[in-house]
Amino acid sequence: MDSCIFCKIVTGEIPCSKVYEDDDFLAFLDIRPVNHGHVLLIPRVHAVRLTDLDDRILARELPVARRIAQAVLAATGRTDFNLLNTNGAASGQEVFHHHLHIIPRATGDGMKLILNPVSYADGEAAALAREISTRL
Amino acid sequence: MDSCIFCKIVTGEIPCSKVYEDDDFLAFLDIRPVNHGHVLLIPRVHAVRLTDLDDRILARELPVARRIAQAVLAATGRTDFNLLNTNGAASGQEVFHHHLHIIPRATGDGMKLILNPVSYADGEAAALAREISTRL
Repeated sequence: MDSCIFCKIVTGEIPCSKVYEDDDFLAFLDIRPVNHGHVLLIPRVHAVRLTDLDDRILARELPVARRIAQAVLAATGRTDFNLLNTNGAASGQEVFHHHLHIIPRATGDGMKLILNPVSYADGEAAALAREISTRL
Repeated sequence: MDSCIFCKIVTGEIPCSKVYEDDDFLAFLDIRPVNHGHVLLIPRVHAVRLTDLDDRILARELPVARRIAQAVLAATGRTDFNLLNTNGAASGQEVFHHHLHIIPRATGDGMKLILNPVSYADGEAAALAREISTRL
């Protein structure tokens, strides 16, 4: 993917502040961090979305993310963190190469998540749950 | 965990709109959804944080989440989604049993993520990346 900035980070064409790498993954500091220590974990292979990755890669991602999160918390003195992943423009994805945000958090920091929940009419949730489960 | 509402959902003591289950995981519709089809994927075992889960469970979570996400998108007609996981009160965790949000998204929906990024002084990112990597 000639135009993908994360592929260029994987090849070294664009520099990064690397925190971890192995045969499948690379992790580096986000250049626009919510807090210091905010890491992006990416697969070396180009995949736009989580749903484009195979199970072998996906099975490795959270065990690696856990190790990185623990190292980030130890290095920054934080205790709390978020994992966040975007898939498509409506979800906030800006770089179209799968990435998992590992974000150390502190009360009162700059990250605000506003959810404005909707509701289900009577029976609607049960019907939708059946629609989803029949597709699994 | 007598007082954990997600453990009570696992045992069936509290009902849910179930979309998936296997020996390790249960997934059900969030009762306060960002959009219809917003799912919570939880391990049956009680663990407060991602970092409290063992690698065997963690290795299964994203392959399962991918299948559920694809079924949610198919059932709702959405194309985009977020994965979100909270760890600790400062990260927005409200139920202290690990859960992964699978959230179908649409442009202009009620979910707003405000990041207010901070910056690094010269050399600060490289130094922190070294601090993190030495802990891995």
